Amino acid sequence: MSLYGAIEAGGTKFVCAVGTGPDDLRAEARFPTTTPLETLDRTISFFKEQQERLGEPLIALGVGSFGPVDPNPASPTFGFVTTTPKPGWANADVVGALRKVFPIPVGFDTDVNAAALGEHRWGAAQGLDTFIYLTIGTGLGGGGMVGGRLIHGLVHPEMGHIRIPHDWAADPFPGACPYHGDCFEGLAAGPALERRLQQRGETVPENHPVWALEAHYIALGLVNLILTLSPERLILGGGVMQQAHLFPLVRQEVLILLAGYVQAAEILNNCERYIVPPGLGGRSGVLGALALAQMVARE
Amino acid sequence: MSLYGAIEAGGTKFVCAVGTGPDDLRAEARFPTTTPLETLDRTISFFKEQQERLGEPLIALGVGSFGPVDPNPASPTFGFVTTTPKPGWANADVVGALRKVFPIPVGFDTDVNAAALGEHRWGAAQGLDTFIYLTIGTGLGGGGMVGGRLIHGLVHPEMGHIRIPHDWAADPFPGACPYHGDCFEGLAAGPALERRLQQRGETVPENHPVWALEAHYIALGLVNLILTLSPERLILGGGVMQQAHLFPLVRQEVLILLAGYVQAAEILNNCERYIVPPGLGGRSGVLGALALAQMVARE
Repeated sequence: MSLYGAIEAGGTKFVCAVGTGPDDLRAEARFPTTTPLETLDRTISFFKEQQERLGEPLIALGVGSFGPVDPNPASPTFGFVTTTPKPGWANADVVGALRKVFPIPVGFDTDVNAAALGEHRWGAAQGLDTFIYLTIGTGLGGGGMVGGRLIHGLVHPEMGHIRIPHDWAADPFPGACPYHGDCFEGLAAGPALERRLQQRGETVPENHPVWALEAHYIALGLVNLILTLSPERLILGGGVMQQAHLFPLVRQEVLILLAGYVQAAEILNNCERYIVPPGLGGRSGVLGALALAQMVARE
Repeated sequence: MSLYGAIEAGGTKFVCAVGTGPDDLRAEARFPTTTPLETLDRTISFFKEQQERLGEPLIALGVGSFGPVDPNPASPTFGFVTTTPKPGWANADVVGALRKVFPIPVGFDTDVNAAALGEHRWGAAQGLDTFIYLTIGTGLGGGGMVGGRLIHGLVHPEMGHIRIPHDWAADPFPGACPYHGDCFEGLAAGPALERRLQQRGETVPENHPVWALEAHYIALGLVNLILTLSPERLILGGGVMQQAHLFPLVRQEVLILLAGYVQAAEILNNCERYIVPPGLGGRSGVLGALALAQMVARE
């Protein structure tokens, strides 16, 4: 059995694992994201220890990282976290630090593209070739595949920052995005929920009217993604979507907003299978990083 | 030299051509789109005549069609115009009608995906693998490639119908889309311009403030596409974009709306090469249909 290493490099915490898939994870570690030096040192130590403990070398590593990142293998800054405002992390060479110690292939992509790949391999996107994985939590971001390939393009998608209609009369909250104010993330991510009510989302009862507003914003974002990419499925993860009662509200609102324009039975008749939670629950990210490692090992 | 047939099947007119590329078009015909029977009969007659005149059989046909369409070769309704409100055309079997007479491969896609393919082959998207072609005219629609493949997914993109912010105080016009009112198309396509001012866009002077509003709406749409797909280039065609003075306004507004969030030199330093008119002018559609024919002939 070949051993792969996975790193879910989040802005708040790192999750590292070794194994071959969801049913064969040999070890896992979680620690807070501090400085790049300290955090990558802990990451490297973990993998060194596991190699020794298991008596097997790693074949490849996969990293799903917070961003923005440079995921282009042909670029001189491939594997860097680039222009993040997170202190110390701007221009941090994540892949370079790993390769110095582990001279093996390292796959590298955004956290959300990695999660999308994990869902494609083992979760809710198996067998699909065009789909979106969206995380709605502290931030709001999306990745996915089009025609069987992870979306890259010029840099990588930043779906959380699309502009959506904001009815200032109904919702005078100006939005929480430091760049754009009331973009999708600014209106619908966790911090927007919290600042709008001065209360954490988890503590707001299900019958509070803010959930209809939240579902409305999420649906506006989804409708734009549906009309732009024509995905076969939308997978919604992240802390806010732990509020499972949001799913039926979002689906209903998506159908209202599409207004019958996209005549696809998958959306119209089967929306509970079209807009879904992650098949891997909270583990899409780290398992996606593992799938990235396996993908780069095959190349 | 192999001979290919191209059909730009528009909602208003059909353009048919035979040849092998932009520098080798042997014949072309344009006629109004009437009933499916009459229009497809004229199409078939044109190609029959050209085969006889040139003494050569067609190798393959390509169709870029108004929609919505079914572009999935595995589907029983492949090659149909599907749920269009255009009288007579709902469920019209375009490819079937052609194949009855010409037992050769027929490529079929949306008009905008065909135009994107044309631009990729001979125009402003040569060498790129992720880009968008948008037409802003009587309607507003988009196609393109991601990772070197035309975007299909569940059905096909309908980028013109994404929702964008609408400041009702600054612009009380309710939007012209029969499905969604003030979606992107409803606010920014030709009919919106015309109905807002009770005057055709072509007759509005360049210094009229409506052009700043128009550029703002176009930029909102583009920003959403940029953040969703991370295209390497955006190509804007269609009647409204014949107003060439819109291009600098749109570019400036895109940079303002992105607010430095996407740190890519291609956008920040080179926007006049990032948001561009079609390299093939008004011929992206018919040449794209020709490229579709060549693509299907190679398969």
